[in-house]
Amino acid sequence: MASDKKVEAITSMEVDFAQWYTDVVKKAELMDYSSVKGCMIFKPAGYALWENIQHELDRRFKETGVQNVYMPMFIPESLLEREKDHVEGFAPEVAWVTQGGLQPLQEKLCVRPTSETLFCDFYKNDIHSYRDLPKVYNQWCSVVRWEKETRPFLRSREFLWQEGHTAHATAEDAEARTQQMLNLYADFCEEFLAMPVIRGRKTDKEKFAGAEATYTIEALMHDGKALQSGTSHNFGDGFAKAFDIQYTDKDNTLKYVHQTSWGMTTRLIGAVIMVHGDNNGLVLPPLLAPTQVMIVPIQQKKEGVLAKAFELKEVLSGFRVKVDDTDKSPGFKFAEQEMRGIPLRVEIGPKDLAAGQVVLARRDNGEKTTVTFEELKDKVGELLQTIQKDMLERARAHRDAHTYVAADYESFKETVANKPGFIKAMWCGDQACEDKIKEETTATSRCMPFEQEHLSDVCVCCGKPAKKMVYWGKAY
Amino acid sequence: MASDKKVEAITSMEVDFAQWYTDVVKKAELMDYSSVKGCMIFKPAGYALWENIQHELDRRFKETGVQNVYMPMFIPESLLEREKDHVEGFAPEVAWVTQGGLQPLQEKLCVRPTSETLFCDFYKNDIHSYRDLPKVYNQWCSVVRWEKETRPFLRSREFLWQEGHTAHATAEDAEARTQQMLNLYADFCEEFLAMPVIRGRKTDKEKFAGAEATYTIEALMHDGKALQSGTSHNFGDGFAKAFDIQYTDKDNTLKYVHQTSWGMTTRLIGAVIMVHGDNNGLVLPPLLAPTQVMIVPIQQKKEGVLAKAFELKEVLSGFRVKVDDTDKSPGFKFAEQEMRGIPLRVEIGPKDLAAGQVVLARRDNGEKTTVTFEELKDKVGELLQTIQKDMLERARAHRDAHTYVAADYESFKETVANKPGFIKAMWCGDQACEDKIKEETTATSRCMPFEQEHLSDVCVCCGKPAKKMVYWGKAY
Repeated sequence: MASDKKVEAITSMEVDFAQWYTDVVKKAELMDYSSVKGCMIFKPAGYALWENIQHELDRRFKETGVQNVYMPMFIPESLLEREKDHVEGFAPEVAWVTQGGLQPLQEKLCVRPTSETLFCDFYKNDIHSYRDLPKVYNQWCSVVRWEKETRPFLRSREFLWQEGHTAHATAEDAEARTQQMLNLYADFCEEFLAMPVIRGRKTDKEKFAGAEATYTIEALMHDGKALQSGTSHNFGDGFAKAFDIQYTDKDNTLKYVHQTSWGMTTRLIGAVIMVHGDNNGLVLPPLLAPTQVMIVPIQQKKEGVLAKAFELKEVLSGFRVKVDDTDKSPGFKFAEQEMRGIPLRVEIGPKDLAAGQVVLARRDNGEKTTVTFEELKDKVGELLQTIQKDMLERARAHRDAHTYVAADYESFKETVANKPGFIKAMWCGDQACEDKIKEETTATSRCMPFEQEHLSDVCVCCGKPAKKMVYWGKAY
Repeated sequence: MASDKKVEAITSMEVDFAQWYTDVVKKAELMDYSSVKGCMIFKPAGYALWENIQHELDRRFKETGVQNVYMPMFIPESLLEREKDHVEGFAPEVAWVTQGGLQPLQEKLCVRPTSETLFCDFYKNDIHSYRDLPKVYNQWCSVVRWEKETRPFLRSREFLWQEGHTAHATAEDAEARTQQMLNLYADFCEEFLAMPVIRGRKTDKEKFAGAEATYTIEALMHDGKALQSGTSHNFGDGFAKAFDIQYTDKDNTLKYVHQTSWGMTTRLIGAVIMVHGDNNGLVLPPLLAPTQVMIVPIQQKKEGVLAKAFELKEVLSGFRVKVDDTDKSPGFKFAEQEMRGIPLRVEIGPKDLAAGQVVLARRDNGEKTTVTFEELKDKVGELLQTIQKDMLERARAHRDAHTYVAADYESFKETVANKPGFIKAMWCGDQACEDKIKEETTATSRCMPFEQEHLSDVCVCCGKPAKKMVYWGKAY
């Protein structure tokens, strides 16, 4: 009988963080493995998170003039090869279609790993005059990268994302759009996902294949590992030259366009799990949560309890609210609501009914409050806002407490080895030092943050004059 | 100069309907060809139609308890082959991935042409007890079928759609869901797209590969050809047996589930073009139109005109409204608004400004009305409703005027040859007659409508006793 079944315990995150993560994904019913190696199934609870992310991001995009389009999922080999750096970056990890219907194809097609080449091919024919610029297009789709190691949400052979691809008249316009979208991503993470991020620029070693500059937002997971959560690339006119995308300017001369691209993926869901989750399961920020309030009737067969539960649901109709009227035990329902990360629980039993009150329980910190029926609506609205704010602050405090400064290479190595988190350190700008640090410590440069600090005059690795402060860390 | 350019005329639909269609798709900037043979590019105006269709359908789905999920885009060959009829139907037209990264795959993967097999594979592991039923899942994605002849929106190698896949405890539940979704589709077409449809059942010859019963909605295009606009399939327990999907019922015995699937695609956009369009371009029903009202300032450099245009935009903020303040001529703007099918135009010039009025022009019938600034908001709301209603009625009248009855085979053949439209005729139920009719007239059985009529006692083809009235027609 389901009513006798307990929600199975998950591995504690202190014991085995990776196993905790997998347990949460499975027990909160977010995702499942499929028969197709490396490809995942988004179950309703997982896909609903993506729908909410899509909806909010898309709204923010459109406010900045983004228009949605849809490009084919296939890229002919000759098109993928047009830009040298780009093909070198992607060719080793794409899936190839070699047969269509009963015939072998004359030219093999890769399943898009990203669509710069398709957008360029389109823009070449669609852009003629300065009047056609800027083009600020985006698409929501899935892409395929033939990864060897996969993990739910974080790395899979097929994943869902959005990819924006823009074309501009000038280098300045392209740079402004690149930074605008990076900031939009960062604001979205902080305001909607309650996830603080570092905004910065990737080193040349870490930038996107074919980009002049890649900007990134980096978040810190609960285990002290970094997660790249969104990137925005300025291509300059490199792709425009490779694909011959020119426009006639006002002065009647032909000029190359300047391009950008930017993307966010379903790995954001993994980030939410690892930033906010705890040993009872998922913890969702209220703005993201598909269900914000779960009303749990206690002794629901007692006269009036269930009726009142549904009446309160109507009272709370401005929120995303459900009543759990299954025949499971209250304890099981509590554990299930906690596992699924629903931000607020309303408990209503016969005694509450008699007293004209309910108990509100916060998922994020377990705090309980008793409120009267009359106060309920206002209190729920207030608490959901408070939870959203507290979750961001808690995540920021955790990140700050796990951000270290390394003045010399010895302390850098010791910090990487013993203190999971971000390390801020100065860098000379040479890739040799970056390579050495990665080789010897497994930490990678996460970004050169926009907010630079002067920690010392010299590179943490080689001691030569420093050019930039860099965030380092082990990363997903 | 763009302001001097005229909107290029399109081929008249009476001269060449196919060319008219292609011209509208191109000039209304809905779609473009890509470098990938048979795959199309959805441009912003085309994709916006799909977004509105998605949004409304998804809302209607969720009201009936549908949950969205996402399955992998690849199907291993062995999985596709599990159900005999299904693989026979689809294997000849799928694209095969044979290489992932730098390695050939051990088992080739097809790019999903439809996802019954993936859902079955998932349900097999996810369904255990009657408590797990029903499963009412849907996904929004693209699918690939390696078509030889392609046409924008109507037939392409990759297209966008939704596919619902459900599992039920009983045959009755599955049948009820199959019909519920067919009716949902039909209501959506009529209420949202202003497109009347015939609801009915496919003959065995025309049903889906692997289905026990396929229900369909059939619409009539302006040229008298039919377009299958949505289908809903009852699989009985055929797939359940092939994939071994069993559940433990209340009586503690193992039973097979009963399944359905149902889908609608981007070909609906082609249907909207061909049902409502005219020789000035696209005509969009107001509920579907991304822009419902275009305000066109006349002599916009004259004092106050542009300011008033934007003021009226604010007045109309409850609608989807834009101001065309480009430097094109009013005539060009009118033609462009008409080409794009925007339902209502507001014309405002210096004389209107002085008189405190504007001119409203309906896209569907060209009717013009003068209204005062004060009346504008109410009148726009009223007109948009009227247009929506009139478009459905006009399309229904056109369909009814092009629906013929054939009592004998001679008149059947003559009608097919000379009167494009639906033909209602009686049928004995034998596939031999269906084959013969298709062979000799190119008309196919569109459906056995739910609303049966008794036209005669005998089959129109063989003269044997008739079992069903069938809608016949040439189809896209």
